[in-house]
Amino acid sequence: MNEIEKILEFIVEIEKLKAVVRKTRPVGIDRYENSAEHSWHVCLSALMLKDYANKNININRVIKMLLIHDLGEIDAGDTIIYQSETVENKNKEAAGVERVFKLLPEACYEEYTALWQEFELGLSADSKYARAIDRVPPLLHNLLGEGHSWQDNKVSKDKVFSVNSRIKDGSQKLWDVMESKLENAVSKGILK
Amino acid sequence: MNEIEKILEFIVEIEKLKAVVRKTRPVGIDRYENSAEHSWHVCLSALMLKDYANKNININRVIKMLLIHDLGEIDAGDTIIYQSETVENKNKEAAGVERVFKLLPEACYEEYTALWQEFELGLSADSKYARAIDRVPPLLHNLLGEGHSWQDNKVSKDKVFSVNSRIKDGSQKLWDVMESKLENAVSKGILK
Repeated sequence: MNEIEKILEFIVEIEKLKAVVRKTRPVGIDRYENSAEHSWHVCLSALMLKDYANKNININRVIKMLLIHDLGEIDAGDTIIYQSETVENKNKEAAGVERVFKLLPEACYEEYTALWQEFELGLSADSKYARAIDRVPPLLHNLLGEGHSWQDNKVSKDKVFSVNSRIKDGSQKLWDVMESKLENAVSKGILK
Repeated sequence: MNEIEKILEFIVEIEKLKAVVRKTRPVGIDRYENSAEHSWHVCLSALMLKDYANKNININRVIKMLLIHDLGEIDAGDTIIYQSETVENKNKEAAGVERVFKLLPEACYEEYTALWQEFELGLSADSKYARAIDRVPPLLHNLLGEGHSWQDNKVSKDKVFSVNSRIKDGSQKLWDVMESKLENAVSKGILK
């Protein structure tokens, strides 16, 4: 098979991310979000908020990271973050990413597997910022949607603050804004 | 309002693209695609096919272009390409893009409005390649989905070949592959 045909096969395979359903509803939309549209949304969010990263980041790498960050869910499915960061789930995602990137030419397989791992590890400045941004839309969905996903999934305010405070590792300024919105949600009683 | 708050307002506003329904069904998924997940899909497609562009392109600019290329549809809605390229529709999209980008700080408004216009004009190497890639997933949806959208929308093979041959302006090699798939669809009788 020629390389273009291989890449087209990858393009068809990753469509499955459009069928992976997440745990929040987008603002004003009466259905749950899928991981493909979420991926688009975090890319544009990262682009527009880039000047608020704590450190010098390479926004082009961040966007690539966010384009691929959920591909492991094609095989592993989406799990709410408050329960998903287990070794078993991460292994499933890693195997899924590997399977999908194997459809690509070897050099791409290596490059994008490494980029996905960098995102997962969250140690570099780029990945810290990408992981911060990944948290923003689901928080906005809850904040503007009566805390629907926090309540449906019985997530406590302590858990919400502790998991999302990772935003400050990527952008202290963004966390300051989000933290005050979360405190406001607590006063309003939609986050308990 | 501080700038981060303005950008968060933009992030919430663009969610509406998740509710804009397109005219093809993704492979293996029993619903129509929306323009947000399509935008993610074309970004990753562009990234993986970048080495097949006719000219030297800046893939980072191409990805930014594709992230924003459909934002005008929030106000204008999606129209099938075989009928959409009218002055009236393009004006509606341009006004929609302007309204949405106005939510951003001034410098971003100017930068991304210009980038959107560059995509629409399709004269630069980056925009020619981006516009080529934008055609690929809907063709794959039809090719692997019994030509459902061609038939539902009564699109003739002449129209399909003439509109999509713009792929060759961005990537002759990609058009060679797609053209042969389209010819195959004609032989199979799913494109008439």
